Amino acid sequence: MTNNEIKFIRSLSLKKFRDSLGLFVVEGRKLVREAQESGLEVLDVYSEEKDGEELMARISSMSSPSPCLAVVRKAPAKTLEAPFKGLYLALDSVRDPGNLGTVIRLADWFGLSAVLASDDTAELYNPKVIQASMGSAFRVPVVYGDLPAMLREFRSESVPVFGTFLRGENIYGAELPADAVLVMGNEANGISGSVAALCNHKITIPSFGSKAESLNISAAAAVCVSEFRKWKKS
Amino acid sequence: MTNNEIKFIRSLSLKKFRDSLGLFVVEGRKLVREAQESGLEVLDVYSEEKDGEELMARISSMSSPSPCLAVVRKAPAKTLEAPFKGLYLALDSVRDPGNLGTVIRLADWFGLSAVLASDDTAELYNPKVIQASMGSAFRVPVVYGDLPAMLREFRSESVPVFGTFLRGENIYGAELPADAVLVMGNEANGISGSVAALCNHKITIPSFGSKAESLNISAAAAVCVSEFRKWKKS
Repeated sequence: MTNNEIKFIRSLSLKKFRDSLGLFVVEGRKLVREAQESGLEVLDVYSEEKDGEELMARISSMSSPSPCLAVVRKAPAKTLEAPFKGLYLALDSVRDPGNLGTVIRLADWFGLSAVLASDDTAELYNPKVIQASMGSAFRVPVVYGDLPAMLREFRSESVPVFGTFLRGENIYGAELPADAVLVMGNEANGISGSVAALCNHKITIPSFGSKAESLNISAAAAVCVSEFRKWKKS
Repeated sequence: MTNNEIKFIRSLSLKKFRDSLGLFVVEGRKLVREAQESGLEVLDVYSEEKDGEELMARISSMSSPSPCLAVVRKAPAKTLEAPFKGLYLALDSVRDPGNLGTVIRLADWFGLSAVLASDDTAELYNPKVIQASMGSAFRVPVVYGDLPAMLREFRSESVPVFGTFLRGENIYGAELPADAVLVMGNEANGISGSVAALCNHKITIPSFGSKAESLNISAAAAVCVSEFRKWKKS
């Protein structure tokens, strides 16, 4: 393997190269296998057995190099497709890649229809997102775009938009329909004004009087998605 | 500030120095304020205004240095205290500091009685745990110890021990008492054999037939704790 090839793989740890080349990196035996089974185009696979530990250490972007790494072509960008059936999770500027990955894994487990992400949400192909999603990023449709515009499409089809707020209706007593969008806000600032204006149901997870000001976004999403989806399994 | 003082603060990013000195570091204005309000002994506070940006960059262990940092004395180690009332969350070898911090924040929000942690669970004073807990680590009692021994104490007081397993009773149909322990297992391997043997109720969060093999531990804990605690608010 030439130095240029090594540089090429390492360059994919940066968003600008992932964007311009349309490629990303998957690390770990299990994740590489999931990528291969997902229908994505896997261009190259490198492994400890085939290429040696030293090379793996040079191409890996992880602190402890994984024994297997693949270069994979991004899927074509997903778009929003009506009719809107089932539960959609919408992310309004969720910045932490670990949170995004965890939420995608949650969406996979509970069979959500898609995850909608504002353009300033963390990038799907960030290695930390891929890692935290544990392969779910290869299966769950994640649609990036202008979030208010996407939510208006749901509203125009009479699909209700639920938002999580610090002061809203107690989710445990709320009527939660089978077809809906559930909006989670930014880690520090919650849901932005323009998105809040499109939420026709404001819900909250009641706290037990603690001094905690909020829940982590993946924990809050887990509680809400569970409330929406439980008993809805066909 | 001398080089030795800077070295001293930086050394606290390592567990062995936190252990031997009984001190830890808190970064971020909000967290430092929470530490001060929590009753913990705050030895020193450094800030951008007082000490300059350059110094903050030298003492911070974060990639983007925070404007405020405090050296804080650890609280005395918590111990298990009967009678056992309310919900306890028990962690069997949860290794990721981010997961531990998120779970402590969850325990705070839902008013749990304590978090029990096996000795090989991530360390409470790891900067990533403190950060992810958003101050809840200063409020929620976290008891480290021999987890099977702790669980036997609950069993001997007739408090049921619930464990989350891939195949167990559907949590949404299960009867969930007000006083209980809920065990979450290791990120990769789940609940260990010796702890599983002490669980008298095995529960599961049903999936929607996806290929996802599991939920992230903080998402799973959120769903389970929500099921246990909802409607139990006094």
